[in-house]
Amino acid sequence: MEQAHASTREPCELSATEAGRLMAEGQLSSEELVRSCLGRIDRLEPTIGAWVSLDRELLLAQAHAADERRRSGQATELPLNGIPIGIKDVFDTADLPTENGTPAHQGRRPPDDAAAVRLLRQSGALIAGKTVTAELAVYFPGKTVNPYDPQRTPGGSSSGSAAAVACSMVPIALGTQTNGSVIRPASYCGVVGFKPTYGSIPRAGVLRQSPRLDQIGVFSRTVADSTLAVSILQGDRTPQGDMLPWPKIDPERLQREPKQQPRLAMVRTPAWSSAEPQTRRALLRFVAELGCEVQEITLPAVADLAVACHRTIMLSEMAHHYRPLVQEYRHHLSPKLLAMIEDGATIGKDQYIDALGLAEEITGAIDAALDPCTGTLTPATPAVAPEGLESTGSPIFSTLWSLCGVPAISLPLLTGENRLPLGLQIVAARGRDQALVQTAHWLEQNTPHR
Amino acid sequence: MEQAHASTREPCELSATEAGRLMAEGQLSSEELVRSCLGRIDRLEPTIGAWVSLDRELLLAQAHAADERRRSGQATELPLNGIPIGIKDVFDTADLPTENGTPAHQGRRPPDDAAAVRLLRQSGALIAGKTVTAELAVYFPGKTVNPYDPQRTPGGSSSGSAAAVACSMVPIALGTQTNGSVIRPASYCGVVGFKPTYGSIPRAGVLRQSPRLDQIGVFSRTVADSTLAVSILQGDRTPQGDMLPWPKIDPERLQREPKQQPRLAMVRTPAWSSAEPQTRRALLRFVAELGCEVQEITLPAVADLAVACHRTIMLSEMAHHYRPLVQEYRHHLSPKLLAMIEDGATIGKDQYIDALGLAEEITGAIDAALDPCTGTLTPATPAVAPEGLESTGSPIFSTLWSLCGVPAISLPLLTGENRLPLGLQIVAARGRDQALVQTAHWLEQNTPHR
Repeated sequence: MEQAHASTREPCELSATEAGRLMAEGQLSSEELVRSCLGRIDRLEPTIGAWVSLDRELLLAQAHAADERRRSGQATELPLNGIPIGIKDVFDTADLPTENGTPAHQGRRPPDDAAAVRLLRQSGALIAGKTVTAELAVYFPGKTVNPYDPQRTPGGSSSGSAAAVACSMVPIALGTQTNGSVIRPASYCGVVGFKPTYGSIPRAGVLRQSPRLDQIGVFSRTVADSTLAVSILQGDRTPQGDMLPWPKIDPERLQREPKQQPRLAMVRTPAWSSAEPQTRRALLRFVAELGCEVQEITLPAVADLAVACHRTIMLSEMAHHYRPLVQEYRHHLSPKLLAMIEDGATIGKDQYIDALGLAEEITGAIDAALDPCTGTLTPATPAVAPEGLESTGSPIFSTLWSLCGVPAISLPLLTGENRLPLGLQIVAARGRDQALVQTAHWLEQNTPHR
Repeated sequence: MEQAHASTREPCELSATEAGRLMAEGQLSSEELVRSCLGRIDRLEPTIGAWVSLDRELLLAQAHAADERRRSGQATELPLNGIPIGIKDVFDTADLPTENGTPAHQGRRPPDDAAAVRLLRQSGALIAGKTVTAELAVYFPGKTVNPYDPQRTPGGSSSGSAAAVACSMVPIALGTQTNGSVIRPASYCGVVGFKPTYGSIPRAGVLRQSPRLDQIGVFSRTVADSTLAVSILQGDRTPQGDMLPWPKIDPERLQREPKQQPRLAMVRTPAWSSAEPQTRRALLRFVAELGCEVQEITLPAVADLAVACHRTIMLSEMAHHYRPLVQEYRHHLSPKLLAMIEDGATIGKDQYIDALGLAEEITGAIDAALDPCTGTLTPATPAVAPEGLESTGSPIFSTLWSLCGVPAISLPLLTGENRLPLGLQIVAARGRDQALVQTAHWLEQNTPHR
């Protein structure tokens, strides 16, 4: 049924998993897929503005190489062979500029691919191009608009990646999250956003904002695609570089164990009062209509300190890493970012060390609270994408989870104001990524998409 | 043969593994073992000064309870049932004072056991008493002397634990290492010292000196005992608290796979020039006489920055955590510690953040350098225990490994000046603790003890 359905859609609308199967069966070439994606980009990019650099010839050349690998039998071990992937413009790429969303880095050409980009290429993937990021992966927005309403933000900072996937310009795109930069745009753009456990994807060659918090994530239109992409990004060796030895995801278990009933919980979190009434109702209705037991958990009191703790760490480290830019390019930086860097510089070493210790304490407590369930449901954002393009929205429903480095996934299963998409966020204890994606897959299969 | 040999020794001279086997066979009671240990303590403690608190009645009561558990069949799943263990006086204990080696904490009675102490009790172990630590686990020595020469330091900061094990007062003792505080006293006292990968033992309830560096380790007289103790201290769940998900050690693999030939390397490290000629010769001769291939590796250049990087992190965090003591108890702290705390307070936040980033870079490079081998041989200390009791010796051969959090073990297989013991240190990449103990066990079995 899926395949019959698939055949009525344009290739660019296929998931990476579907497209990969059709390519393996000889029913689709990477070139056809890429031309379909480029057609979609031609049509929608003038409105959406998801891309900051895209070299059509380079992309087609990669597609031809992938088709050639398949013809010559060299693609059987390459899970993403021929699949175009959008790369947030904070990942270094050797063949396209990497400008980090700031005019201070205009025309910057790093010599090497980031480790994550290298892993994608090694799996046969095509680097489709670089997607728009908010300024230095923080707040000040790029040109991208929300695909559901061009008067609204797509969310940030991984704005272009979320929008490109939502518009079927690519099936998968890379993002990063220091606070809410994967989960929030996924919620606003109605796509799947998956940020695995902190330390499970190598960060070499990615813009350093706040190393204690910076995490890599992916966007796609299905849980299976996000799972596949993250499994590639985890590489096959541990430890390497800055990775921690978390268990790796096996995407084939999604197919082997699809019907296992998850152990679900829900949590309001200290941010609940900042969610709009419609968001709270949408989550509670979703839980009520699930038809299975969902235990409501309350978090340990120390979780109330997470937002302040996160702020101390993020601003301290951001001030440290971005200060060289201030000295040289002050007039290129947004006033908001300059203010954050100045704030960060005033934080004392003892306050910063305190925050690092507190973060460890909160993480231990949150792991313990999330441990009994395979997935805990919570809002992804306080509301749908806000109107206006001057802000990328609130990260408040991601801050706690980013601080703790727990895996989080946003699914487009809720609907908010004006029938706009609203993410259902699911979180789990660190290292429980496999259980989390199994849970997300079960929910995707057993509840109607919005 | 081992057993026949065992029966000619006093019970206190048995390893924990041997004693456990005899107890399981009904040939030894925990009370007999404890009385033998107490006899040894009575005889040697006036000279050695390994203990800061020891309650004979409390210890005997624990032994009786352990014997009762065994008689009633409740001990079969308790790997350390009836074995007395010395606890460095920086681990909280609910039933004995925990004074952290400073008069500022005289009479301090924490309400709960440290997590590590709890894990030992849950495995049936007896808490023998608290062993001498240098002042706040740093440099200023306690009363302990070297069992091989009372005019020499036992090393620090885990002075009492190393000396107590060397004298057969207990078969196993706990230590901590922020710089060289397990490996160094093990080298000087001629015992096995094992510090597993950073983050593999929970630290709740242990004195916080420098959380980025503080690590727990053990002392024993055999590799099997250290392996057994660390396997208990790793607990059975991950993640918990501040632990990282490193693979756990299986002590039974030592017996199942004893003959597997290790892949050995040796490394001089940037500290090589500070080793005394006799130490260098002892290591090189050991390697030459091994009769198997030992590849000499060179470390990446970034390793040269490790000592300065370690210093920045350790002093910064020490200043942060010990400063409240300075305000209240300045006259109780040694001038050297006060100077270190003052030094640490002058380090700026940016320098500290730089050091954290550099530490991550060095760690990745060291993991990669150590990865090809199951164990890399290097000195444990520049020389044998120095004369005099005013210093605990140089940690220079541990600093790099502590910074990186790689597992390290010191074996009493070398001999230095005056035929005094000198540790052979073996290190491995993070998470390769099982390979490391297999390698150490092989070396212990296949080379003559000093």
